[in-house]
Amino acid sequence: MPSENPKISDLGEKKLIKRLLEKSQKFPFKSIFFDELSFKSRSDDAAILNFGENYLVATSDLLIQSTHFPIQMTPQQIGKKLVTVNVSDLAAMGAESLGIIVAMALPPDLMVSDFDEILEGILKACEHYQMALIGGDTNESSELTLCGTCLGTVAKDYVMMKSGAQVGDIIAVTGYLGLAAAGFEILFDDELKLKELNPTFKELALKRALEPDAQLKKGILLSKTGFVTSATDITDGLLSELGELIQANQNNVGMIINEDKIPIPKEIFEIAGKIGKDPLEMALSFGEDFEILLTIRKNKFFELKDKFSLYEIGYVTSTGQIQIIDKEGKTNILISKGYEHFKNYDKSNQVFH
Amino acid sequence: MPSENPKISDLGEKKLIKRLLEKSQKFPFKSIFFDELSFKSRSDDAAILNFGENYLVATSDLLIQSTHFPIQMTPQQIGKKLVTVNVSDLAAMGAESLGIIVAMALPPDLMVSDFDEILEGILKACEHYQMALIGGDTNESSELTLCGTCLGTVAKDYVMMKSGAQVGDIIAVTGYLGLAAAGFEILFDDELKLKELNPTFKELALKRALEPDAQLKKGILLSKTGFVTSATDITDGLLSELGELIQANQNNVGMIINEDKIPIPKEIFEIAGKIGKDPLEMALSFGEDFEILLTIRKNKFFELKDKFSLYEIGYVTSTGQIQIIDKEGKTNILISKGYEHFKNYDKSNQVFH
Repeated sequence: MPSENPKISDLGEKKLIKRLLEKSQKFPFKSIFFDELSFKSRSDDAAILNFGENYLVATSDLLIQSTHFPIQMTPQQIGKKLVTVNVSDLAAMGAESLGIIVAMALPPDLMVSDFDEILEGILKACEHYQMALIGGDTNESSELTLCGTCLGTVAKDYVMMKSGAQVGDIIAVTGYLGLAAAGFEILFDDELKLKELNPTFKELALKRALEPDAQLKKGILLSKTGFVTSATDITDGLLSELGELIQANQNNVGMIINEDKIPIPKEIFEIAGKIGKDPLEMALSFGEDFEILLTIRKNKFFELKDKFSLYEIGYVTSTGQIQIIDKEGKTNILISKGYEHFKNYDKSNQVFH
Repeated sequence: MPSENPKISDLGEKKLIKRLLEKSQKFPFKSIFFDELSFKSRSDDAAILNFGENYLVATSDLLIQSTHFPIQMTPQQIGKKLVTVNVSDLAAMGAESLGIIVAMALPPDLMVSDFDEILEGILKACEHYQMALIGGDTNESSELTLCGTCLGTVAKDYVMMKSGAQVGDIIAVTGYLGLAAAGFEILFDDELKLKELNPTFKELALKRALEPDAQLKKGILLSKTGFVTSATDITDGLLSELGELIQANQNNVGMIINEDKIPIPKEIFEIAGKIGKDPLEMALSFGEDFEILLTIRKNKFFELKDKFSLYEIGYVTSTGQIQIIDKEGKTNILISKGYEHFKNYDKSNQVFH
């Protein structure tokens, strides 16, 4: 029975954001800085504003110590992650990054040396993504909380949105899925179940967990091909993001993916076996991989596949559902569950506390 | 003796922000979206980017329950305050507000009805300031934390910056100072020392504390006169903001103000007497008034004074110091101390815990 006084944990993050953005629609955008696409962009992770031939893209992400920074993460890695999660939203739209504004809430007993290291991480990431730190604000708080706002720009003709997938398009991803999940399992491997793992893979997975990289260059170059019909970054897990592409779409599109084609490194099956988890769930529902999920016009896919090292995982349907063809060739309907704060939170994934 | 491992509370907020922005200078702005003023704007509360004839203005402010929202503040007022603190930074630069992106970290047991009320407050404030809610993100956190990022625009010829004050300019403010401080004293008047206060004043002061308003229209119109040489909003107290105008200035300007001319409502003297505080400190050091502090060309001041109901409080000098002429006509040097998180935190002002 639904509660008469529901809490936000009863609702879930995606529904909260939807609630937030739906309510905002009662105020029309009157300014010349908004156009039809600006309006649509409210289902994307970044807002777009009309600036001549370009869109200005703006996105905000808030990271909190206990939710986003495992204790093994160094202050420099914390700084880099703040920039990366924001830049990843730009990458998914094909936008170049201009700069970032950083608002920080800091515990008063934070060491100045740690503050400087966080800053150093932010600046190194800015250099890496060819952008500037353009503003900042600090406040006092009991818990380290960082809010980054990234500004970027993309030519109007090239902007990638969540909404444009068409029936028949190829669904592809830019890289391995489940690596971050594997990295977090290795980080919190208190019982040393994973100590025998291939060291190169271990390093790769830990890097993905502690120092993820946004696919900025790939996003920009993919958008310039003009053949990408929709895109989003994979922060909440593939299933959740597939659901996003369906929800943002005004037609009743669906997505079918092929279990065999999902790029999951073999070591993830090994890890899953050792710790008793489902490798598919690690790859599809954990998130934090910061790869890009795209739909691409079918007749142009092979041009792009090799150039951008894309993995084809399925195609766009007209079912309105997410379906998966399993190893036996059976087609199952999947419910999008992804990594969602507040709701259906799988405690076994709650590795940061 | 300075500690070998200093904490950020030893440094203070202003020095932290300075540290942040100074370090960022090692990366040059190469993009066409930045010009010389964009570079200078790092000492302002908002970043400015080059967009044809206009600047795009972007500012981020983070508000935390225990620091910024007294328990008497309703969820709607919390939402409105988030928008107002951001819009106030635009107002001080003469920029029109386009929209706001809101990133929220929410405790999981927050009632959906309270979430909706916060949102309603944000939307009402957006309507009030004629702007749109253009994006949002939610996260889980132990403490309610809201980060707003406001985007605005101002014609290049009209932008007001912190840095432009010239010797001889008139120093003015747009309204009463100390009202917010008075409001907070009334809110936390547990011993009922202030129950006899004039009810109209009481209401005014409480409104300033719980539902402050940004001087957006006034800021825009003042900037369009072309006679304002520098400006900032008064969030951290007049003294702190005078210090900001001096620090942002490349010349060795100073500021002298006249105690008698500071617009302090007489009830603030009454309150200060009853609770044993210094009324001048309430008016100059508490902040949260969200009025604008300006320097204006001397020969143009009288044109603007009546039109914008400005209060002249002093003039710009070449001393590099903040000075005050007291009621006896004696000139004293003031040290800027304002409301600063982390450092020199006056516990008697810490009314929110």
